[in-house]
Amino acid sequence: MKYRRIPEETIRRMPRYLRAFSTLGGQGQEFLSSRQLADYLHLNPPQIRKDLSYFGDFGTRGVGYPVSQTAQQIRKILKLDVAQKAALIGAGRLGTAIAAYPGFAMFGFDIAAIFDSAPAKIGKKIAGLTVQDISQVTAIHNEGIRFAILAIPAEAAQTCADMLVLAGIRGILNLSPQWLYVPKRVKIVSIDLAMELGTLPYYL
Amino acid sequence: MKYRRIPEETIRRMPRYLRAFSTLGGQGQEFLSSRQLADYLHLNPPQIRKDLSYFGDFGTRGVGYPVSQTAQQIRKILKLDVAQKAALIGAGRLGTAIAAYPGFAMFGFDIAAIFDSAPAKIGKKIAGLTVQDISQVTAIHNEGIRFAILAIPAEAAQTCADMLVLAGIRGILNLSPQWLYVPKRVKIVSIDLAMELGTLPYYL
Repeated sequence: MKYRRIPEETIRRMPRYLRAFSTLGGQGQEFLSSRQLADYLHLNPPQIRKDLSYFGDFGTRGVGYPVSQTAQQIRKILKLDVAQKAALIGAGRLGTAIAAYPGFAMFGFDIAAIFDSAPAKIGKKIAGLTVQDISQVTAIHNEGIRFAILAIPAEAAQTCADMLVLAGIRGILNLSPQWLYVPKRVKIVSIDLAMELGTLPYYL
Repeated sequence: MKYRRIPEETIRRMPRYLRAFSTLGGQGQEFLSSRQLADYLHLNPPQIRKDLSYFGDFGTRGVGYPVSQTAQQIRKILKLDVAQKAALIGAGRLGTAIAAYPGFAMFGFDIAAIFDSAPAKIGKKIAGLTVQDISQVTAIHNEGIRFAILAIPAEAAQTCADMLVLAGIRGILNLSPQWLYVPKRVKIVSIDLAMELGTLPYYL
């Protein structure tokens, strides 16, 4: 089911709600109010109620949102209720750190392949996977991999994105500071750690 | 100068504007319209005009925003017009990758110290800095360091955040999946790469 006219900012907040429901639910709470979610996520309650209302009304006034039911509903909306395979591009320091990151399981992601272009890295084992030659990346299409994490230097990012597009990728998490040009069907989320740090001095 | 009642989401988008002005300005453009910014940032023009209007009216209808002037104004608003020192906590794979990341300079950040708790890492040189013992972290107060990047495992994150608060830190970029409890005066931005990846399947 595809829901219509949902703002991108709402979609970006949905995984935060999922994590809140998963974490606070894991601590034994059966219901969560928008106030509790707001305190936990540093958002405001009306914003949260509005975001969740786009997907139907699963909260009850005065009671809150049923934790496990809402978490499951959000997983379904975000298509995280089925395992999603991702390829990791870049087996350098950042890539190696990402491969070892335990957080992907909560969101149903499985890092299913690792690629690099450096001969010294190809063939090495990282997190149980053998690093493959980036020139072989088109193979991911047949492995059902639709997502990629780009953990490579800026100057290689666009060429690599082009290869991923040819390989039928549908979503890229871009960790390089390079702006990527891709067809509209490919969704990009870019994270620039320096840019994230850049919001903090304002609050001094 | 402190501006009032600015939504947190607006502040979070400001560094994106700054990067757009810096990058597109570096390509020789003198003015940028909200339409051009919107295309570049995948936001909508009214949103951008509204965000920028919180800080005064530096655009001209039909002409756009003057690139270098607006970039400088945003830097001033975000307090990125002066060099800001940050401490990196964690000299593992992720920390080492961050120490080598060239993107901090665009936002005026200087990684001025690196800390870890592992005896095997303390004393090592990373990106020109000697890794210090985390037990010495209070020293950052006298060095004018007000920001920290947490690149450590979840189970160590809260203890470490407590030490940073005692050391007078005012902003933390948290890269662990751990939720951190800190006093209100300390601002936290948390990045969970799995959560960011979690928005992509929705668009399949």
